[in-house]
Amino acid sequence: MPENTEYRPGLEGVIAAETSISYLDVEHEEIVIRGYDLIQLARTVSYLDVAHLLLHGWLPSVEESAAWAREIAQVDLGADRIVPLVDEMGPQMHMMDWLRTAVSVMGTWDPDVGREDPDATLAQGRRLLATLPTVLAQGYRRRQHLPVIVSDPGLGYAANFLHMITGTEPTPAQARAFDQLLTVYIEHEMPNSTFAAIVISSTLADLYGALTGAVASLKGRLHGGANEAVMHMLFEVGNPAKMRPYLEEKLARKERIMGFGHRVYMRRPDPRAVLMKELLTDLVKSAGRQDLYDLCVAGEEAMYDLKGLYPNLDYYAAPVYYLLGVPIELYTPIFFAARTAGLVAHVREQYAQNRLFRPRVRYIGPRGLTVTR
Amino acid sequence: MPENTEYRPGLEGVIAAETSISYLDVEHEEIVIRGYDLIQLARTVSYLDVAHLLLHGWLPSVEESAAWAREIAQVDLGADRIVPLVDEMGPQMHMMDWLRTAVSVMGTWDPDVGREDPDATLAQGRRLLATLPTVLAQGYRRRQHLPVIVSDPGLGYAANFLHMITGTEPTPAQARAFDQLLTVYIEHEMPNSTFAAIVISSTLADLYGALTGAVASLKGRLHGGANEAVMHMLFEVGNPAKMRPYLEEKLARKERIMGFGHRVYMRRPDPRAVLMKELLTDLVKSAGRQDLYDLCVAGEEAMYDLKGLYPNLDYYAAPVYYLLGVPIELYTPIFFAARTAGLVAHVREQYAQNRLFRPRVRYIGPRGLTVTR
Repeated sequence: MPENTEYRPGLEGVIAAETSISYLDVEHEEIVIRGYDLIQLARTVSYLDVAHLLLHGWLPSVEESAAWAREIAQVDLGADRIVPLVDEMGPQMHMMDWLRTAVSVMGTWDPDVGREDPDATLAQGRRLLATLPTVLAQGYRRRQHLPVIVSDPGLGYAANFLHMITGTEPTPAQARAFDQLLTVYIEHEMPNSTFAAIVISSTLADLYGALTGAVASLKGRLHGGANEAVMHMLFEVGNPAKMRPYLEEKLARKERIMGFGHRVYMRRPDPRAVLMKELLTDLVKSAGRQDLYDLCVAGEEAMYDLKGLYPNLDYYAAPVYYLLGVPIELYTPIFFAARTAGLVAHVREQYAQNRLFRPRVRYIGPRGLTVTR
Repeated sequence: MPENTEYRPGLEGVIAAETSISYLDVEHEEIVIRGYDLIQLARTVSYLDVAHLLLHGWLPSVEESAAWAREIAQVDLGADRIVPLVDEMGPQMHMMDWLRTAVSVMGTWDPDVGREDPDATLAQGRRLLATLPTVLAQGYRRRQHLPVIVSDPGLGYAANFLHMITGTEPTPAQARAFDQLLTVYIEHEMPNSTFAAIVISSTLADLYGALTGAVASLKGRLHGGANEAVMHMLFEVGNPAKMRPYLEEKLARKERIMGFGHRVYMRRPDPRAVLMKELLTDLVKSAGRQDLYDLCVAGEEAMYDLKGLYPNLDYYAAPVYYLLGVPIELYTPIFFAARTAGLVAHVREQYAQNRLFRPRVRYIGPRGLTVTR
């Protein structure tokens, strides 16, 4: 009975699901993806390989990996029909609104929508992986009145995605960096957006609906917007010497600094941030932007001194995005595109062991009022 | 720590929020809306009055009620810009997909989107109440290649909504019945769709995003689709004598019968179903459809005999919708349109006492795997 239940705001510490997809091991500060360490995956295999691990349950062999990439390249839901809708969005459009709308529309084109059996949801997941980069990148460039870049899956998944965004074919090093960026964003246990997706899918609502809700969640500035906020902060500060006074002033005004700490773990540095910092070391060399690296490190050191907080993924992902030529308003949408594989895995798991989410409330309003007129 | 927490699938019985909006009093089988009994509200005041109660916190006086209705009539977000998008949806479009997409697009036209202060969210809520009936009804008729009916708020909120759907101006009795139908759907504590909306809004995502997620949830057949399923069942059975054998056969095959029982309460008849049954008594008289009433009662009696279950709202709302001339595929979308007021109230409450929803999981997958290639 609800009256006897302890109320924990935000369901902090409450177990909301049993899962074999991923786990934040707080003790060892490890992100476990179906038994593997996410960082080892990012260092050794590709984004699409990890997507295969999430969706099929095992890491593909070299042959399976190539077949899977070919499969993904062939199941585009028809981005050409969807991208022109970006012209009809209103003046307040955020790129996450575009993604939210586009995912919603994609569901109306999917021939398997509304089927929850494992094969059908896998097919839908493949179509989402195939279509989202094109819809996002082309939608962005069309909205900006920039020439739209035609999808060329032959470049490889990450390189094609990045090319469609920037309009410049990436070097192998850039493509590999972007692939690793996508990989570290691919899955992260039960953040708000994943929770929203499984809550929605527990009504047996369709995968596109569940993912539409996840985009909506990720748009929130307490969730997905942190990587964009970090980049704006780096621009605002501009040079390493100004970083510490800037942070001190912010903290004195009790303002929130984005890119540090995490609700669940982070008593040690976020292992994803460590990998991104490594990538940044290489990228600043070829770009001649050691100043940007120094600026980031100054922020990292100052926040540890002042608050004992470590940078999280968003902090070091932001400058990596930047040096790869990604416009700031696409940081969060790309986070979502990368997370798609994890979300699809969670929705499939929810369908397979479904129980409708329907919690109770503690009512603290009035009782016994009567209409008098 | 999650390890010490009991896992309750679907968060059954878990308190997920403190609220002063509404409460299902299981003991007295009463639906409490800000202190009032929902059924008394439906009998005495209008849908828009209850929307005012939900959004402003108090039941409006007669003067306030008239001013509120005028206000709602004037803040349409521009349905004319949104409705034509229905032509661009794919062939698998369900009317809930249209609603999900349309709400998502509406957010890009709202000048206050992204503001979470009470005034701005109230303004957004008014615009949603003003725009959704038009977007839904006109979108439906355009998709069906039927002449679109121009909105005429002068008819009153419910009458205008029904007119735009059916193309026939309703009688006062029909308008009043539709108003009561909207009212009993307006709010119901913490069903999955409302939970999805507050989960999403806890990231400080915008109201339109939260409501897009709620539409996605309500589309699920374990949630909003029950009223449509009931009507299909009534058509399938066709006459009262066949009802009991039909249900017996279904139950023997362990198939789910929609329109009966409720996860949280219903040890007595759903008070909303009782009111809808009353409305049905009147509607069958003017329509000369006593057979439909007898069919429904036969189902109610058989299910009580066979399973001890009472009909819920959806069971008696379906034939009411039908006799009002509403197409079946609009039953769930209208449920959502009616629920908008409740959802906006919950999102506003969430913003005012926000804590990010971020539960944990119990990991039951493998550990310690290593990439070997």
